[in-house]
Amino acid sequence: MKSPLAPPTRLLLGPGPSPVDPSVLEALGKPVLGHLDPAFIAIMDETSDRLRQVFRTRNPLTFPVSGTGSAGMETALVNILEPGDRIVIGVNGVFGARMADAARRAGAKVTMVDAPWGQPIEPDALASAVRTDKPKAVALVHAETSTGVRSSVDLVRREIGPAPLLIVDSVTGLGGIPLEVDKWGIDVCFSGTQKCLSVPPGLAPITFSPRAAQAVADRKTPVQSWYLDVTMLRKYWEEGEGGRAYHHTAPISMIYGLWEGLRLVLEEGLEDRWIRHQEVGEFLQAELKEMGFKLFAASGHRLPQLTSVTLPKGVSDDLRGRLLNDFDIEIGGGLGDVAGKMWRVGLMGFGAKKENVIRLVQSIRALI
Amino acid sequence: MKSPLAPPTRLLLGPGPSPVDPSVLEALGKPVLGHLDPAFIAIMDETSDRLRQVFRTRNPLTFPVSGTGSAGMETALVNILEPGDRIVIGVNGVFGARMADAARRAGAKVTMVDAPWGQPIEPDALASAVRTDKPKAVALVHAETSTGVRSSVDLVRREIGPAPLLIVDSVTGLGGIPLEVDKWGIDVCFSGTQKCLSVPPGLAPITFSPRAAQAVADRKTPVQSWYLDVTMLRKYWEEGEGGRAYHHTAPISMIYGLWEGLRLVLEEGLEDRWIRHQEVGEFLQAELKEMGFKLFAASGHRLPQLTSVTLPKGVSDDLRGRLLNDFDIEIGGGLGDVAGKMWRVGLMGFGAKKENVIRLVQSIRALI
Repeated sequence: MKSPLAPPTRLLLGPGPSPVDPSVLEALGKPVLGHLDPAFIAIMDETSDRLRQVFRTRNPLTFPVSGTGSAGMETALVNILEPGDRIVIGVNGVFGARMADAARRAGAKVTMVDAPWGQPIEPDALASAVRTDKPKAVALVHAETSTGVRSSVDLVRREIGPAPLLIVDSVTGLGGIPLEVDKWGIDVCFSGTQKCLSVPPGLAPITFSPRAAQAVADRKTPVQSWYLDVTMLRKYWEEGEGGRAYHHTAPISMIYGLWEGLRLVLEEGLEDRWIRHQEVGEFLQAELKEMGFKLFAASGHRLPQLTSVTLPKGVSDDLRGRLLNDFDIEIGGGLGDVAGKMWRVGLMGFGAKKENVIRLVQSIRALI
Repeated sequence: MKSPLAPPTRLLLGPGPSPVDPSVLEALGKPVLGHLDPAFIAIMDETSDRLRQVFRTRNPLTFPVSGTGSAGMETALVNILEPGDRIVIGVNGVFGARMADAARRAGAKVTMVDAPWGQPIEPDALASAVRTDKPKAVALVHAETSTGVRSSVDLVRREIGPAPLLIVDSVTGLGGIPLEVDKWGIDVCFSGTQKCLSVPPGLAPITFSPRAAQAVADRKTPVQSWYLDVTMLRKYWEEGEGGRAYHHTAPISMIYGLWEGLRLVLEEGLEDRWIRHQEVGEFLQAELKEMGFKLFAASGHRLPQLTSVTLPKGVSDDLRGRLLNDFDIEIGGGLGDVAGKMWRVGLMGFGAKKENVIRLVQSIRALI
């Protein structure tokens, strides 16, 4: 039987997973502890504390969901929404539409506020829908992974006013661009580990503001998901009267990886990390423009950590396969309507380095 | 900032997570691939193929859910059940009751068939409920982690007849005791990685029979969970017309670990592994009896991989903490009504060794 596992070493410059620091890979292989071992509970507490620093929040209810980023999305929606609740969702790409789908499955009445792919969500448009619908919550994507667009979450809160709970998908944002959960008035923010945190996929960091946690506690119906029910999860992640209550067995090794990944983020300094992403992303965007690619995201709203481009004449999408096979570089293609016509290049976390830009640009030049 | 991560090395003899073979820990740290990289898709296919061998099934729809064992439970229930559907669930411990809770959250009408803790589910009692209720599905736990009891799934299928879909929780069974998904007529079987497969927690192997997959395809309502919807997940795990469809980013590193853990299971031989668990478990049970512990599970239904005992006079539950602190050995306490009065000792996968029994027994002797 084939052994051992020998995956090729790729340079991961797609929309995630991103390259992982060797010390994070090392952490994954540390001896497994029981999920109720005091030594593990200390690691959980440190992980939550580091997540609070990276989310820029003081929310006690801050922890990694035991699933990937989409499990974080579902956790946010199924805990906040009860059947019949209204939610307004900004949709300017795949991940906004995904939230609308998940919210409908939770029985919510969904108003979609669309923006064209490549454009940010208009705060005014959300505010107008809020005035009409008076929803329990508003949701939008901070950093749309399908288009490379940043929406202005701070302006959104200002426009919609304080009433609705504000749910933000920052799967691709967290750790790469400014995100201020408390200052911007975000009530629930979720992310993933495999983007700008540079930890392998498998966990979804999430945070609930005190009023979001209260909204969950005040529900009249049980949360439809047993696995993602934060009324039970919080008894494991927060110290209660009788200590920690077992809910499900936590993914120990993945939490080790996140612990270490967050340590590296804080060691670098969150703001320095934002600057690094900005500089490296701008460098890539300039290089790609020079080669004839067109930047897809609207000017002023381009994510530095995820660049979307349409292909110049003479460059076929097949070139992505050759980049992978001949040069061991992964970049992403387009999703949905722009499949085959767009590339998405990620420079996230450990991967956001100018040397990676140069290697990519030289490799593309060698193939066209 | 504290660094690096330095968890203590514990001997994990609780109800899971179980000890992990060093080669599995090593696999976790291999270079991360993209979730659509052909090299990763080959690893996915091998993983599913190995899972089929360990589940003893030919079901095409066999894959690891991106969450822990409880996510596997939820995947089984929310895909099979629509609001208003009837299900009969055998409940003889915490994990049967958990299924009933999750099924109710999915809108199902649940009939619980109870058996006392320590006893198996009576096939007759399930059959009688099936005659009365004519449910869409019957569910039970193969190996109750809260009590150490094995129920006879093959007899259950014989008694309930072919009509209802049969859902089986084999979180603690798979890879440790005989389980024959196809031969026994199981329609959906789910497990966890952190028990007898000896892989860290984080994935839930699951398999759907063709008629279970058809039942999902025939649903009139969408699956309530976006994250766990197998109508979408199967487009990623099974080759379709346009190749693999992205759903969510798979937990790459955990799948590496499972790939390697399953390799070790098949290298040992599944039946030899069952025998090893049986022999080591009986050895422990004899030793504990000799020390005055009482075996809790009914004779003839004792799991070898998880032994539940009540404590003799003079032995306090506090001793578990001293075993952990002084001897680095983790064993489990009781859940629910038997908290403080019961121990649960796991000898699972890589941990099912006579030397571990001897180390545990000698350590207990040193403390009492």
